Amino acid sequence: MKQNELPTDISLAECGQRLLEADDIYILSHQYPDGDTLGSAAALCRLLLQKGKRVRTLCSDEIPKKFADLYQGLPQEEFSPAFVVAVDVADVKLLGKKLEHFGDKIDLCIDHHGSNKRYARWNYVDPTAAAAAEMIAQLANLWGVALDPAVADAIFTGITTDTGCFKYTNATSRTYRIAADMIDAGADASRINRIMFDTKSRARLEIERRVLDTMRFYFDGRCAVVYVTNEMVAQTGAGADDTDGLASLPRQVEGVKVGVTLRQREDGAFKASVRTDGVNASAICAHFGGGGHPAAAGCLLPGTVEQAREAMLEVVGRALEEQA
Amino acid sequence: MKQNELPTDISLAECGQRLLEADDIYILSHQYPDGDTLGSAAALCRLLLQKGKRVRTLCSDEIPKKFADLYQGLPQEEFSPAFVVAVDVADVKLLGKKLEHFGDKIDLCIDHHGSNKRYARWNYVDPTAAAAAEMIAQLANLWGVALDPAVADAIFTGITTDTGCFKYTNATSRTYRIAADMIDAGADASRINRIMFDTKSRARLEIERRVLDTMRFYFDGRCAVVYVTNEMVAQTGAGADDTDGLASLPRQVEGVKVGVTLRQREDGAFKASVRTDGVNASAICAHFGGGGHPAAAGCLLPGTVEQAREAMLEVVGRALEEQA
Repeated sequence: MKQNELPTDISLAECGQRLLEADDIYILSHQYPDGDTLGSAAALCRLLLQKGKRVRTLCSDEIPKKFADLYQGLPQEEFSPAFVVAVDVADVKLLGKKLEHFGDKIDLCIDHHGSNKRYARWNYVDPTAAAAAEMIAQLANLWGVALDPAVADAIFTGITTDTGCFKYTNATSRTYRIAADMIDAGADASRINRIMFDTKSRARLEIERRVLDTMRFYFDGRCAVVYVTNEMVAQTGAGADDTDGLASLPRQVEGVKVGVTLRQREDGAFKASVRTDGVNASAICAHFGGGGHPAAAGCLLPGTVEQAREAMLEVVGRALEEQA
Repeated sequence: MKQNELPTDISLAECGQRLLEADDIYILSHQYPDGDTLGSAAALCRLLLQKGKRVRTLCSDEIPKKFADLYQGLPQEEFSPAFVVAVDVADVKLLGKKLEHFGDKIDLCIDHHGSNKRYARWNYVDPTAAAAAEMIAQLANLWGVALDPAVADAIFTGITTDTGCFKYTNATSRTYRIAADMIDAGADASRINRIMFDTKSRARLEIERRVLDTMRFYFDGRCAVVYVTNEMVAQTGAGADDTDGLASLPRQVEGVKVGVTLRQREDGAFKASVRTDGVNASAICAHFGGGGHPAAAGCLLPGTVEQAREAMLEVVGRALEEQA
């Protein structure tokens, strides 16, 4: 953000206008990238290329293999940006090391997180959108651009990954209709859903079995906790991709209102992923300086797995009591 | 089918007309009922009640607990039927013991299976529909009926269960748009998807772990086979509901083109469920007198689990060779 200017919430129409007026555009994704930040960036990049812009995407982390197709053929040319856009980035802290120097230089933010920090000069934030990719679809529609299959695949990927294959409460009829439009534009929906949700490496299968072995229940079965240590991951030969989605396992058990997955990081601390049904996950994680969505949030917990679990259970217990 | 009349393929419009002209209607579902045969029956029943008809649904098996909501408040009154409809029933053999006596008395069949046997007097068969429930939605649309949430829930349930939560190739943009319409009419999509796909009993979790233990790979990892014996089920205390969907496990592993699940029946024989990617599952199962869809089919195999596996692998091997 340039000095002496206050951040401004803008509409879809103004967002579209600002982008059409810009050139030499950088599109930034958040660290530990998911299908929405990458799908939105790839789709927006392709749309802006169609509009004749010089544009490229950037991310602090490598693009996970399963999203590589979205970036096929996109320019990686070096240039000095005149306009910087962040997509699906709720807070500049989430840009990661390689991109953190852009923190105070972001012109436009396109995001769907209710917790968005309005760090950009112009902020187009729509918490009713299931995914930032839904907002990119609306931009394309506003511009009257004919979608090609590559854009459609990217937008579909963002939508389906951020809705857990249309399973979360954030998926609205608009979400489904945009998905239908993407299929009509050539998105290979069933292939994408299969890759994102229905394909497991053998290492993943093995880590999943071991994680299920750690599952313990608390508060009359209303809370389930699992953990994943670095040792478990090393023993199965699982990569970072293989541990994605483990966070959804504990909450899937009948009767579980709060599912907690404790994933050890390289520094030994535990990243807690909290998935809930009718309990505010974001509020639970806020106790530990984390945050997220009402039904899916995360935070960091220091100490051993037992200490991390104890700390989390205390807060979960209070949340369940308040809710009862 | 009445004597001296040939079965006739009819259009959506004629199907709608025949139903409006009828009264005292029985709606039959297939045995081992799934979300589509039950959702379609419940939705059609509610629509016909709105049209002032005397109507009831029938199924040879009990309604599984997770589908019970769809039937809430539907009449179970006894009457002699003047018009019999079968929904999502490809063959009268699938009606099951309690309903098999209707086999030659079915006036109308509404079905989306390509393999439909045209056993009814009038057959409205649309293999491009992802689910029979999609065809019921089109009927409602044809009749101009305002959908209530109960009908919308039933149709959404049929669609989402028959597309594996929109994951199979049968889900088209029309499927997604009908799903969107159902959400607008009050379907609780995320709740339904969660119940159908994201909720596991503890017994299910346990049986899943044991089934994963049986997984073996063949043909350079292009085929994976798992089995479930009656003993395994008994040891975990799993019910029939708990073993649903186990058939999708082997094909989820990276590189697997043919996934086979052998499920022991009470008589000791094995029901093989075949799930494929780019290989014709229906043709594989036809070798054993079974059938189904190109990517999902089933058949019965006598003998021990080893014998069943050997017989299946021989046919799968040939199918993979032909495909290579």
